[in-house]
Amino acid sequence: MKELTLNVMQIREIVSEDKADVLRLLESTGVFQNHEIKVAEEVIEESLDPAAGYHSICMVNEENRAVAYACWGPTPCTEGTFDLYWIAVHPDFQKHGIGKQLLEHIELQISCSGGRLMLIETSSFSDYEDARRFYARSGYRQIAMIQDYYRPGDHKIIYAKNFVS
Amino acid sequence: MKELTLNVMQIREIVSEDKADVLRLLESTGVFQNHEIKVAEEVIEESLDPAAGYHSICMVNEENRAVAYACWGPTPCTEGTFDLYWIAVHPDFQKHGIGKQLLEHIELQISCSGGRLMLIETSSFSDYEDARRFYARSGYRQIAMIQDYYRPGDHKIIYAKNFVS
Repeated sequence: MKELTLNVMQIREIVSEDKADVLRLLESTGVFQNHEIKVAEEVIEESLDPAAGYHSICMVNEENRAVAYACWGPTPCTEGTFDLYWIAVHPDFQKHGIGKQLLEHIELQISCSGGRLMLIETSSFSDYEDARRFYARSGYRQIAMIQDYYRPGDHKIIYAKNFVS
Repeated sequence: MKELTLNVMQIREIVSEDKADVLRLLESTGVFQNHEIKVAEEVIEESLDPAAGYHSICMVNEENRAVAYACWGPTPCTEGTFDLYWIAVHPDFQKHGIGKQLLEHIELQISCSGGRLMLIETSSFSDYEDARRFYARSGYRQIAMIQDYYRPGDHKIIYAKNFVS
């Protein structure tokens, strides 16, 4: 594991030069499938446009390289509801609270802009067990499960957290 | 109420000339808000492209004018799951089983193409009570509710129906 100098890490909006690093970090987690990485690529490209309905942010190391990525935005056709679409930390930088910092950064943005509700959807598969534990630790509660959503035996689990405005 | 000649009605994919009729029928239901009609317009335009990931279909009267509209497609990142995004019947043509015919047409397409699961999301608001009753009558069961999803007090209700392949 690399030595971490977390004190110099920063969270910022992604720029087009980050795309390769972000895709590599998503791949390196071993959790996302090829078609999901492809979706991520489209999402990153779209979110470079300020007019896009969502934001892609990253945490960068001292060399200004992305080591963690998150994508979130207002849920269409709602008032004050937001979705966390992606959150991932490069394996070399996991277990240092980076995901927590990213998520808290997003939650602050949401609650400061009058957001009421954050939703996170994930899979019931064992690959996502760490992610589910992370959401539970972060104050998200499971509010729904859609059986066999992704494929037979692979359910969608929906987590929610309310913000007081 | 207009006299109906249901026997000459047909279901077909929409074409660009149907757009105005479909938007008018959505407005005439009185259920959809302006921003939803705007979303519908974008969806209709996108679905005219065969490469779009979803289908817009309509039922037309003897003058080849759209009197009912539905939009559905495979749910991204799933295998065999489909979403019904829209279904609406012009008020002059409601209570004649047209919605049922449209929905059954879609279900047949889905099950013939190996679909396993159809999902429908709707609001808990009283405006959608007829729609919710229609889904229940059509064999959909409520599998989840996301409290305060659309706005405070306006919950998202998710319905599901399984198809045996």
